[in-house]
Amino acid sequence: MKDQDYMALAIELAKGTVGQTSPNPSVGCVLVRDGVIVGLGSHLVPGEGHAEVLAIQQAGDKAEGATAYVTLEPCSHTGKTPPCSRLLIDSGIKRVIVATEDPNPLVSGRGINWLKDAGLSVEVGLMKEEAVALNQTFFHFMKEKRPFITLKAAMTLDGKTATKTGDSRWVTGEKAREHVHHMRAKYDAILIGKGTAVKDNPSLTVRQPEYGKHPIRIVLANDLHLPDHLTLFHDDHQTYVVCGKEADMDVFKEKHPTVGVIQLSSQQVEIPELLKQLAELNIQSVYVEGGETVHKSFVESGFVDECHVYIAPKLLTGKDSFGVIGGQSPEWMNDAFALSFEHVERIGEDLFIKAIKKAGN
Amino acid sequence: MKDQDYMALAIELAKGTVGQTSPNPSVGCVLVRDGVIVGLGSHLVPGEGHAEVLAIQQAGDKAEGATAYVTLEPCSHTGKTPPCSRLLIDSGIKRVIVATEDPNPLVSGRGINWLKDAGLSVEVGLMKEEAVALNQTFFHFMKEKRPFITLKAAMTLDGKTATKTGDSRWVTGEKAREHVHHMRAKYDAILIGKGTAVKDNPSLTVRQPEYGKHPIRIVLANDLHLPDHLTLFHDDHQTYVVCGKEADMDVFKEKHPTVGVIQLSSQQVEIPELLKQLAELNIQSVYVEGGETVHKSFVESGFVDECHVYIAPKLLTGKDSFGVIGGQSPEWMNDAFALSFEHVERIGEDLFIKAIKKAGN
Repeated sequence: MKDQDYMALAIELAKGTVGQTSPNPSVGCVLVRDGVIVGLGSHLVPGEGHAEVLAIQQAGDKAEGATAYVTLEPCSHTGKTPPCSRLLIDSGIKRVIVATEDPNPLVSGRGINWLKDAGLSVEVGLMKEEAVALNQTFFHFMKEKRPFITLKAAMTLDGKTATKTGDSRWVTGEKAREHVHHMRAKYDAILIGKGTAVKDNPSLTVRQPEYGKHPIRIVLANDLHLPDHLTLFHDDHQTYVVCGKEADMDVFKEKHPTVGVIQLSSQQVEIPELLKQLAELNIQSVYVEGGETVHKSFVESGFVDECHVYIAPKLLTGKDSFGVIGGQSPEWMNDAFALSFEHVERIGEDLFIKAIKKAGN
Repeated sequence: MKDQDYMALAIELAKGTVGQTSPNPSVGCVLVRDGVIVGLGSHLVPGEGHAEVLAIQQAGDKAEGATAYVTLEPCSHTGKTPPCSRLLIDSGIKRVIVATEDPNPLVSGRGINWLKDAGLSVEVGLMKEEAVALNQTFFHFMKEKRPFITLKAAMTLDGKTATKTGDSRWVTGEKAREHVHHMRAKYDAILIGKGTAVKDNPSLTVRQPEYGKHPIRIVLANDLHLPDHLTLFHDDHQTYVVCGKEADMDVFKEKHPTVGVIQLSSQQVEIPELLKQLAELNIQSVYVEGGETVHKSFVESGFVDECHVYIAPKLLTGKDSFGVIGGQSPEWMNDAFALSFEHVERIGEDLFIKAIKKAGN
């Protein structure tokens, strides 16, 4: 096997844990001595061992003289675990191949310099693109200091999400709905508006148990007037409600002591301030499953990084049925929010389309 | 080469002429003697030589003893040309491979029987599926006695076709718009509503000269109140207007003597009666480029065989912008018109989705 094969394996190890390591990135590590893999590691649980630690533990004495393939620059800070760069040096590793540097400008390059100063051979950049893509939301968060935003919608081929009576069960088939659960697990938070909360009373959990952790649920409700019985307020997972400056927070908190409240300084929920607050909570990615109004706020704010649209092979019709994004139409088609298609896939009888923000919006 | 290779070639010959032979089907013929192709033919112009005639002319004396590969059962009637079955027999052809029988129940099997009675070896069914697909609208027309209907729309990823002001230039990119011109050439007619005629004053021609013949244009206008200056009334191609029983046909005809008028027996244009009238004009396929209202009439009537949706990577937003299909929403999502996705393709920066009617609508 060549360097690239080992790094590809390290990337596969990391991919398996996307969603479960946040706020940490997913990282994989492969240790090789004399052409034999002697240790494998992947960062599994935030706060517990990093990928390098687990791989070195597995290798034991065989780490000495080995080459380490790591998908992200080894850390140089002492957190809940000692710095990985230190550990690599102390284990007698001779050569380290790093896919990409740490995106945090405060520490970027420090781990690599430690290794070099200790006399290890270090190469950086092998399969960098794949390594960055794998931790897309983490890299985005480090760079932009705000969560990565994905708008999600399920619609008919004529662009409708619900009938005039609000019936939307179901737009897409079972496989597409399962795909959504899978997606939810990759995000730190799922966001909906008051309308969806009241109409659907969703639980927004990741229903398949094998799909890992449950994201935080966020509900936008300017006035905090939400029915007390909402499932989101009474299960074991974290929920935040977001309200405007005039909402009566105290009354709400008394009724729902376990629900977090984010009060903004404006009357209506403004997306830029909301994202700043979410960043302070270390929420790095948000999956927006809103209705027409919530989606409109995000598009209008310009803070949309990606769109996931599931299309069902049916025509609902109706000027009075519900669509994906409401609010006021722009005057000109040229004022539309520009994306580019990145991925199209058939899922069961439906289509899944992923589009990403085009530079310049 | 094997039988299947020669038939595949015959099908390719036929494919090249889809759209230009209507009301006749597209047909290809390959003549082979002693492992050498001695003649090729494709029906090129309605009213002129059939595929077999052209191939036999090309082969000359070498037709004697040859095998003929024909995509459709050779005809048995004397029309503008003598029957092809007769010609195959007279040319001394010994073996005929036919992909599929004639879909017209009145003549189906007759040509084949002629050949068999004359002592030729005849095999039927090789690559039947491909041969039928190639003449999809012809087969449909013969069976259903009404035109094949394709609904076409170009929309943003959030299902919008125009801004609130009606601006729709352009939803999709240049390549997708060129694809539409290519599609138009495959249909006998293009249909729009009064709204589109007035707003866009389109010419609905096939702009690229290499794209063959121009389809007939059909405009639905219950009251016949259409501006006199419409391009459709003043160019060299055929236009029909369709109106309700109370429209003043005489006034219109006086103003536009070259425009055909189809007056229906109902006040509003009803799709079932319209399709009967179009069938009488031998219009076998219609490409519906309507707005919300026209599309709604077709979906409501149930007469939609295929949908072509072009999706642009952009979000228009707006409760007040225009969508693909208007009218009244059904009560339940389960009442949507069911399709299945047949083909998805990227065209330039856009997506092209082809969906076909699901049985049971």
